[in-house]
Amino acid sequence: MSGKVKQGYVKPLDLRHGCVDLSHGGGGRAMQQLITELFACHLNNPFLAQGNDGTCLPLESGQLVVATDSHVVSPLFFPGGDIGCLSVHGTVNDVAMMGAIPRYLTAGFILEEGFPLGDLERIIKSMAHAARAAGVLVVAGDTKVVEAGKGDGIYITTTGVGFVPEGLCFSGHLAQPGDAILIYGTVGDHGMAIMSQRENLRFETPLLSDTAALHYLIQKLLAGGAGVKVLRDPTRGGVAATLNEIAHQSGVGMLLDEAAIPLRAEVEASCELLGLDPLNVANEGKVIVICSSDSAQRLLQVMRSDVLGQQAALIGQVTQDEHCFVQMTTRMGGRRMVDWLSGEQLPRIC
Amino acid sequence: MSGKVKQGYVKPLDLRHGCVDLSHGGGGRAMQQLITELFACHLNNPFLAQGNDGTCLPLESGQLVVATDSHVVSPLFFPGGDIGCLSVHGTVNDVAMMGAIPRYLTAGFILEEGFPLGDLERIIKSMAHAARAAGVLVVAGDTKVVEAGKGDGIYITTTGVGFVPEGLCFSGHLAQPGDAILIYGTVGDHGMAIMSQRENLRFETPLLSDTAALHYLIQKLLAGGAGVKVLRDPTRGGVAATLNEIAHQSGVGMLLDEAAIPLRAEVEASCELLGLDPLNVANEGKVIVICSSDSAQRLLQVMRSDVLGQQAALIGQVTQDEHCFVQMTTRMGGRRMVDWLSGEQLPRIC
Repeated sequence: MSGKVKQGYVKPLDLRHGCVDLSHGGGGRAMQQLITELFACHLNNPFLAQGNDGTCLPLESGQLVVATDSHVVSPLFFPGGDIGCLSVHGTVNDVAMMGAIPRYLTAGFILEEGFPLGDLERIIKSMAHAARAAGVLVVAGDTKVVEAGKGDGIYITTTGVGFVPEGLCFSGHLAQPGDAILIYGTVGDHGMAIMSQRENLRFETPLLSDTAALHYLIQKLLAGGAGVKVLRDPTRGGVAATLNEIAHQSGVGMLLDEAAIPLRAEVEASCELLGLDPLNVANEGKVIVICSSDSAQRLLQVMRSDVLGQQAALIGQVTQDEHCFVQMTTRMGGRRMVDWLSGEQLPRIC
Repeated sequence: MSGKVKQGYVKPLDLRHGCVDLSHGGGGRAMQQLITELFACHLNNPFLAQGNDGTCLPLESGQLVVATDSHVVSPLFFPGGDIGCLSVHGTVNDVAMMGAIPRYLTAGFILEEGFPLGDLERIIKSMAHAARAAGVLVVAGDTKVVEAGKGDGIYITTTGVGFVPEGLCFSGHLAQPGDAILIYGTVGDHGMAIMSQRENLRFETPLLSDTAALHYLIQKLLAGGAGVKVLRDPTRGGVAATLNEIAHQSGVGMLLDEAAIPLRAEVEASCELLGLDPLNVANEGKVIVICSSDSAQRLLQVMRSDVLGQQAALIGQVTQDEHCFVQMTTRMGGRRMVDWLSGEQLPRIC
């Protein structure tokens, strides 16, 4: 009896005590079992079930939008989320920033030998939940396994596919002097949630990642009429890097108002403690909107009517500046440069 | 003079002596420089140059086909190729196996701190060359850097996007008893090229990977008329895993003829030396075609008219078998099972 396995009978994966081993990436039975019992089980949909090398999908009208993101966040589980939901939100949001409705995701998994199958299950369930909530289907995937010491548990690369109506164009090139700069809520929450876990900082109100899908909000913003010119989510490098990128793409300057930038007290405190500028810290559920000044109040109202956007704010203006400087009026009434960092401040934040 | 950098002037990347460091994944200036001087420089095209979070692409008619593959091959450079061209061919071929014409690729790079920039350049150039030859554009990308000891130089996840005419369907479900099984050339070349490098085996004629894009061949096969039912490239797990997969999808058996299976003498010799079955060894430039028996000779002629397909062969038939067994008549006249492996034979082969 004990340990004997009948021909044709395969013992189910041991999700409580089992670990990933090299056979799970070998293209044989063990990989098929991992795919069937974990990936297909939770991410199941008719497209994924086609089971061929590529997946056939119906075309919609307009233009195709694609975006890709590799996720290497550490730790894998953090306050407010994990690498699973993050890998859905990160890519869904990149598609959404083009005004598109995200429909499909592909996912490439690089697993490290020895990674607990229970953790993998938790991550896949989180991906599945995030994908369902965002209305996207995971339609194709790939699994590779590397030896212990050649990875860090799990890396997930997702690619998003969506469709945007012909003629709708949002690009970092379209900011103009006089435009308003809006943000959908508090700054730096994701990065400081990760850092607080790494540095073991504790607060009365726990610092949670803001990881969330933004395309429903974007569709509401666009439904109200014209005015939106640039949409971008300030992830790695934070608000500072995002605004500098846009300033250079459009050949404009920007002037922010520090007092107007929404910031949680815990984020401010932990940034001070760690010597970080919240404007350089990553967000995963925020969008920066650059719009004509006359549409700013209408768009702010749309944002604030959203449960996650109650702290949405107008944080500055686009200016004429051939040097493409992003500057900020400080709370003390002075003015300083808001530069993007040269080096690395927060490695593996997403 | 020495070492002083003028404001606004950035020293170019040192491709001879420089290495990847964590700042190259930080979202700031260093990452922008890596993207501009290496990725955009070699992979440049108008879509990639949009420079936004997502990339807008024109729709074609028919159905969309997507496929994704994470590449973790070790060593990164091997006889006949490297991870760069492999990451293009692997994904282009998965799209091509659906009968689609691949148009676009996205690429997610996970770099290890300390990886030589010169090696990265060599890999990107190889990707660029393979993409040009295959007529696909790399339209979106992402770069992450992990600490030394958390990766293995470079991992590349590519996602392919293509279009297939409405109504054209090739699927592992479509094999029927009586169908012919064709292969586009010698078996096991890629896997044994990698293994010969790892095991330091030497042959008079060096063993080269067969890594190649197959979509031009596929289009030629489809142009000649009906008959093709299943197209699949026998990568990880080799011909054995691929045929077992199809047998299970279609609910059929298969009978191969060992004497008909094309095999290089060096591959046969090194397989014997290492105790491997060439049918379990990965290929990266071969396709298995399952077709109606009356179209087999026509399709073989198309394959053989191709410079890479001169050894194309009819290697077996689809049979009726409720157990979905893949069997083989051996050169000695006996019969044996061609099973897919349970465990891992050749880790990190692609």
